[in-house]
Amino acid sequence: MEKREPVRHFQEELGQLKARILAMGGLAEDRVQSAVDGLVSRDPVRLDGVLKGDEPINQLHVEIDGLAFRLLALHQPMASDLRVIVAALKINSDLERVGDMAVNIAEAAHRYLALPPVKPLLDLPRMAEIAQTMLRDALDAFVKRDVDLAQSVLVRDDLLDNYKTQIFRELLTYMLQDPTTIEAGLELILISRHLERIGDHATNIAEDIIFVVSAKDVRHAQNLEP
Amino acid sequence: MEKREPVRHFQEELGQLKARILAMGGLAEDRVQSAVDGLVSRDPVRLDGVLKGDEPINQLHVEIDGLAFRLLALHQPMASDLRVIVAALKINSDLERVGDMAVNIAEAAHRYLALPPVKPLLDLPRMAEIAQTMLRDALDAFVKRDVDLAQSVLVRDDLLDNYKTQIFRELLTYMLQDPTTIEAGLELILISRHLERIGDHATNIAEDIIFVVSAKDVRHAQNLEP
Repeated sequence: MEKREPVRHFQEELGQLKARILAMGGLAEDRVQSAVDGLVSRDPVRLDGVLKGDEPINQLHVEIDGLAFRLLALHQPMASDLRVIVAALKINSDLERVGDMAVNIAEAAHRYLALPPVKPLLDLPRMAEIAQTMLRDALDAFVKRDVDLAQSVLVRDDLLDNYKTQIFRELLTYMLQDPTTIEAGLELILISRHLERIGDHATNIAEDIIFVVSAKDVRHAQNLEP
Repeated sequence: MEKREPVRHFQEELGQLKARILAMGGLAEDRVQSAVDGLVSRDPVRLDGVLKGDEPINQLHVEIDGLAFRLLALHQPMASDLRVIVAALKINSDLERVGDMAVNIAEAAHRYLALPPVKPLLDLPRMAEIAQTMLRDALDAFVKRDVDLAQSVLVRDDLLDNYKTQIFRELLTYMLQDPTTIEAGLELILISRHLERIGDHATNIAEDIIFVVSAKDVRHAQNLEP
């Protein structure tokens, strides 16, 4: 049973919504970092931590949806505030899926560690770094309402795509030359796809921020705050 | 320049929003169908149609977001109507990504057709059929507000996951036995992952519908319709 509190001031709740989004972003980032670190340092315990630790992010996912819904229902926000809340709903979905990608990476890394290694991981760590920086910058742009930073995230998506293609080609070459690397190669290909998707989610978030900051309002907002 | 019309009745606009969601769902479904048909019938022209034809779905994506935002801004809907609009925003994102999956499948199928075929596609067509039925049923559940049908979509996600794992294992066996099948095998593995993701999106949609229909309202809705 939820304890009923008096309706708090709109801006305070909106601030709380943004803070929860950032907390969720931080959690998602940490989980990706742990999955990649577990792969690089060949540390199955670290990977297990990722596999077992998705409860906090799932809780935040539900909580943020609830907060956003409550803000929409109780305060009927207009214009800029409405855009922030709608963006928060979308960003929430994207961050939850980033958390899923961390799990996917940890699962693939676990299978990879059980096989003879292909090569020192090619450019996968570099790809992970780009994806994570994109995510961090997208969330930073959300806090600062920084359209330029958000734009810079969009541009980096191609870079990630190029790395993915290059890694695919390199792994294919190994697999063709030496079929004992096929299984390990497949896992690394899957990991590169998961990293690419993290970049896609960062891109979605950046697009939402551009909408929040720069959307033209069709009409003047009525101020419905209490 | 958008022509200004007088503000239409809320329920009429909400009906329009639902109709656009269904139109988008239909388009997304058609595109997945064409991509899979193009693969099965080895028809590159059909695949090209998928690669070139994403403009209508992208337009609908923007249009639906705009409609939902307009409904939130102008009518300040409460309770059940608010849930429908929030769900529409989420379903819109999911359907756009299903459209992206159709493109990914068509791209992989194109590369696959240029290679010596592995085998008669294993259970990929069956997997595609399940993913598409899940999507169709999820949209049907949205129209009919049918929680049971939505629940049945959730259950089928495991089935899809099992097919994905089985296809992966079978292809891996071929690739290990005959390295000339590696490239084609990789493309089929990627296609099975795209199909799995279509099932994930159908699952997301089904979850949204359950939220729309069964969420407990915290307080009675004020009727803010004009």
